[in-house]
Amino acid sequence: MSAKDRIRLKSLHDRIMTAEEAAALIPNGANVGMSGFTGAGYPKKIPEALAKRIQDEHLKGNKFRINVWTGASTAPELDGALASVDGFELRLPYQSDPICRKKINAGEMEYTDIHLSHVAEYVSRGFLGELSVAVIEVSGITEEGHLISSSSIGNNVTWVDNAKKVILEVNEWQSPKLEGMHDIYGQMKMPPNSKPLPLVHPADRIGTPYIKCPKEKIVGIVLTNNPDRNTPLAKPDENSTKIADHILDFLEIEVKSGRLPKNLLPIQSGVGNIANAVLFGLKKGKFENITSYTEVIQDGMVDLIKCGKMTVASATAFSLSPDLNEELNNHMDDYRSKIILRAQRISNHPELIRRLGCLAMNAMIEADIYGHVNSTHVMGSQIMNGIGGSGDFARNAYISFFMSPSTAKGGSISSIVPMVSHVDHTEHDVNVIVTEQGLADLRGLSPKQRAKLIIENCIHPDYKPAMREYYNKALETAPGKHTPHNLDEALSWHQRFLKTGSMKK
Amino acid sequence: MSAKDRIRLKSLHDRIMTAEEAAALIPNGANVGMSGFTGAGYPKKIPEALAKRIQDEHLKGNKFRINVWTGASTAPELDGALASVDGFELRLPYQSDPICRKKINAGEMEYTDIHLSHVAEYVSRGFLGELSVAVIEVSGITEEGHLISSSSIGNNVTWVDNAKKVILEVNEWQSPKLEGMHDIYGQMKMPPNSKPLPLVHPADRIGTPYIKCPKEKIVGIVLTNNPDRNTPLAKPDENSTKIADHILDFLEIEVKSGRLPKNLLPIQSGVGNIANAVLFGLKKGKFENITSYTEVIQDGMVDLIKCGKMTVASATAFSLSPDLNEELNNHMDDYRSKIILRAQRISNHPELIRRLGCLAMNAMIEADIYGHVNSTHVMGSQIMNGIGGSGDFARNAYISFFMSPSTAKGGSISSIVPMVSHVDHTEHDVNVIVTEQGLADLRGLSPKQRAKLIIENCIHPDYKPAMREYYNKALETAPGKHTPHNLDEALSWHQRFLKTGSMKK
Repeated sequence: MSAKDRIRLKSLHDRIMTAEEAAALIPNGANVGMSGFTGAGYPKKIPEALAKRIQDEHLKGNKFRINVWTGASTAPELDGALASVDGFELRLPYQSDPICRKKINAGEMEYTDIHLSHVAEYVSRGFLGELSVAVIEVSGITEEGHLISSSSIGNNVTWVDNAKKVILEVNEWQSPKLEGMHDIYGQMKMPPNSKPLPLVHPADRIGTPYIKCPKEKIVGIVLTNNPDRNTPLAKPDENSTKIADHILDFLEIEVKSGRLPKNLLPIQSGVGNIANAVLFGLKKGKFENITSYTEVIQDGMVDLIKCGKMTVASATAFSLSPDLNEELNNHMDDYRSKIILRAQRISNHPELIRRLGCLAMNAMIEADIYGHVNSTHVMGSQIMNGIGGSGDFARNAYISFFMSPSTAKGGSISSIVPMVSHVDHTEHDVNVIVTEQGLADLRGLSPKQRAKLIIENCIHPDYKPAMREYYNKALETAPGKHTPHNLDEALSWHQRFLKTGSMKK
Repeated sequence: MSAKDRIRLKSLHDRIMTAEEAAALIPNGANVGMSGFTGAGYPKKIPEALAKRIQDEHLKGNKFRINVWTGASTAPELDGALASVDGFELRLPYQSDPICRKKINAGEMEYTDIHLSHVAEYVSRGFLGELSVAVIEVSGITEEGHLISSSSIGNNVTWVDNAKKVILEVNEWQSPKLEGMHDIYGQMKMPPNSKPLPLVHPADRIGTPYIKCPKEKIVGIVLTNNPDRNTPLAKPDENSTKIADHILDFLEIEVKSGRLPKNLLPIQSGVGNIANAVLFGLKKGKFENITSYTEVIQDGMVDLIKCGKMTVASATAFSLSPDLNEELNNHMDDYRSKIILRAQRISNHPELIRRLGCLAMNAMIEADIYGHVNSTHVMGSQIMNGIGGSGDFARNAYISFFMSPSTAKGGSISSIVPMVSHVDHTEHDVNVIVTEQGLADLRGLSPKQRAKLIIENCIHPDYKPAMREYYNKALETAPGKHTPHNLDEALSWHQRFLKTGSMKK
């Protein structure tokens, strides 16, 4: 079925245009809402055509920059293309593109890092200004003109509802069998008219499979046939496997102690090697009838569904390797009843995460001995990617885990530090810290009790003596012994790294 | 009506005992859940009798310490009495007692600072261990043996549900007319069986007026006739009034711009002078039919109800001056339909705060130029009180405000600093920062955009040149220009204060 055939409402065929024509509809200075979440479902052609246009304007000496809001990270064809021509005035809410990151850290573009559950809220409340244009990838359009989403939903419902103009990319590469996998909740009202969200299990469908879009808003449709950024995943390495084992051991104890049901509670896991190692561990483990309520469906989850260990996975996007994507596409009829994609304001909603009692597992850059977690900044100043949904999940989780190898850069960085150089998750939101060295269960503990456990269980042996020294000195010199810090040395590990290239003395 | 007559189920009369007899039922090492929230509804006699017993045991050379969980802060008769005899092994979740604070900061007792909405959750999940005894003040007991709460609810429902033994104090000082003011939601289930909370307006009553308690759990009843810690409130000072005026001006602009309804959205305000100044300002202002969904009902709210500006106030506790307490008691029949007290897991529930769209106004100790807020620690190490419910509200608010005079200690401390010495609310959770100097609306801004605004609008003139200098140096020297920090100087203002007694150079 060609991309054009996927536009089942024939009266829309006259809005088909080239990517260049579509890009010409986006004005300088505009707020533009684009689809895309974790390398899935982002527009593939218009951003590149727009980048070309921006470059041409810059060559003519004209100013041309836009503000781009997405679901989360996208791909080189979007973030890379626009960043490389200095097309971004401001970008939000999450990115992971190397060119983008470089420009942000060079001070050449602004970046606003917002909880993923807050973005649609802020836009609906009018806090971010007017949304001029939405650029959305879809896998098709129904006879009624409703949009069939592709491999992610992200903030697309909010973009379509709030944008003055909508431009669509219909991507033939996306499986037509995605139709029916999405669940679009259309009854979202703002305070004072908000109502309870009627979802009580990850498998619940509370909406319709389509995004409704007024036909008169659709000002252009571009046909594409381009793959998502599907990157092969490495096999879990030794550290990731150790971290996963610590978590699985912990979960077994929680089940044995009656603090968790036998089939656990819905799993949220960030993207990456450690998360995948946990999912891989669950595949080998003894838990049955697992569920998932998360942001992203990655390889391990499809695997768990395939082997019958996981009954349902709810998310807002896919992030699959080419192999697993093929597996999904080949057996979509089987998977469609077990996978649900939702808007990210639903997948990340505090009401639902708290109600379902998610087990939230997220990676971190560093933690300190008192349990504060830095998820976003390297050495206090440089952004890595962004907070993503880790805050939405950690705060409202049944149990919040933060995971990292205990060292980075060949051992020159310790991921456990005296004081984190940036805080994204406070001591009040962090239940469990895990490195390959071990796990620290911080629930109910005071700061000093946490410190002892984190130093004992999580820090790399190379850094343990120095950390004990810091802690003892802080205990001795701090003006208060609740959270003992020696402010002269609290950030000294980071300062040393910046000066010498290593946190080691 | 005597305290004894308030025990309408006569078969419980044989459980009446002295405070000393009741204190003898609490064993060494026990986890004890006590009533009390912001100086209201705490047990008045048993903690003092227990303190006496602990002191006697210590004099005999015996170990005797307990872990005390409450709603929030209490009063000298509880926190002061137990802290002064070293009776606390651990205290959670919020305290404001001077002796308690001193012991914590001397490293002589442990303190765990948990979001107020998390406490009941953690206990129900079994994360904090077994609850041995509950000690709860009530204003009476019904014919059926149900408990009539007094001036706060806090975590009482959770204590009664989870404790093995319950000891009651029936306080004759509390107005018998409080009966009917409480709304106890009894359908709280833990995941995977949690359901939507059926509350969509601050005025909604979703439960019954009584706490159900199995009669066999009640092992003792002590009769008391003692006042709550009702302290007179000072008139709003100049700085508080200026801060309130900035907020009221901002709210007017939001209403005019259509970003807030004419009657605003439910107000949450922390306790204290600035909060009261805002309420005082609302009394003079033009907003009508205001509502409140908050933790504590303080003088200003009763005032707003009295003058007809506020239609309903929902909270978990009172915190009134003697005058306003008398006003309330004298007209309880009028107020009863306009004031609702709930369990703090309901008053602070993220689901409800997000749904209702609260305007969250909380005090802070300090903020930094990038919008991180410290609510709990002085100079990074010393606890002040605790995070209370500020995190529950700020994260889920429609708009989150943090307020403080721009300086403290006669100008030797700036409440705007280069980097906060402790983070309780991250850049992702702070919308608006207000000092008497002005207001910074941070919504949607990048870190550098925030810094410019905070320096321009909020910092005291005495500190402005030094902060500009820091910011410019950070911009120049930081390895990343996203959140430019110079780690050698990021905490230097605090270091200077610790060395010289002033943050000034």
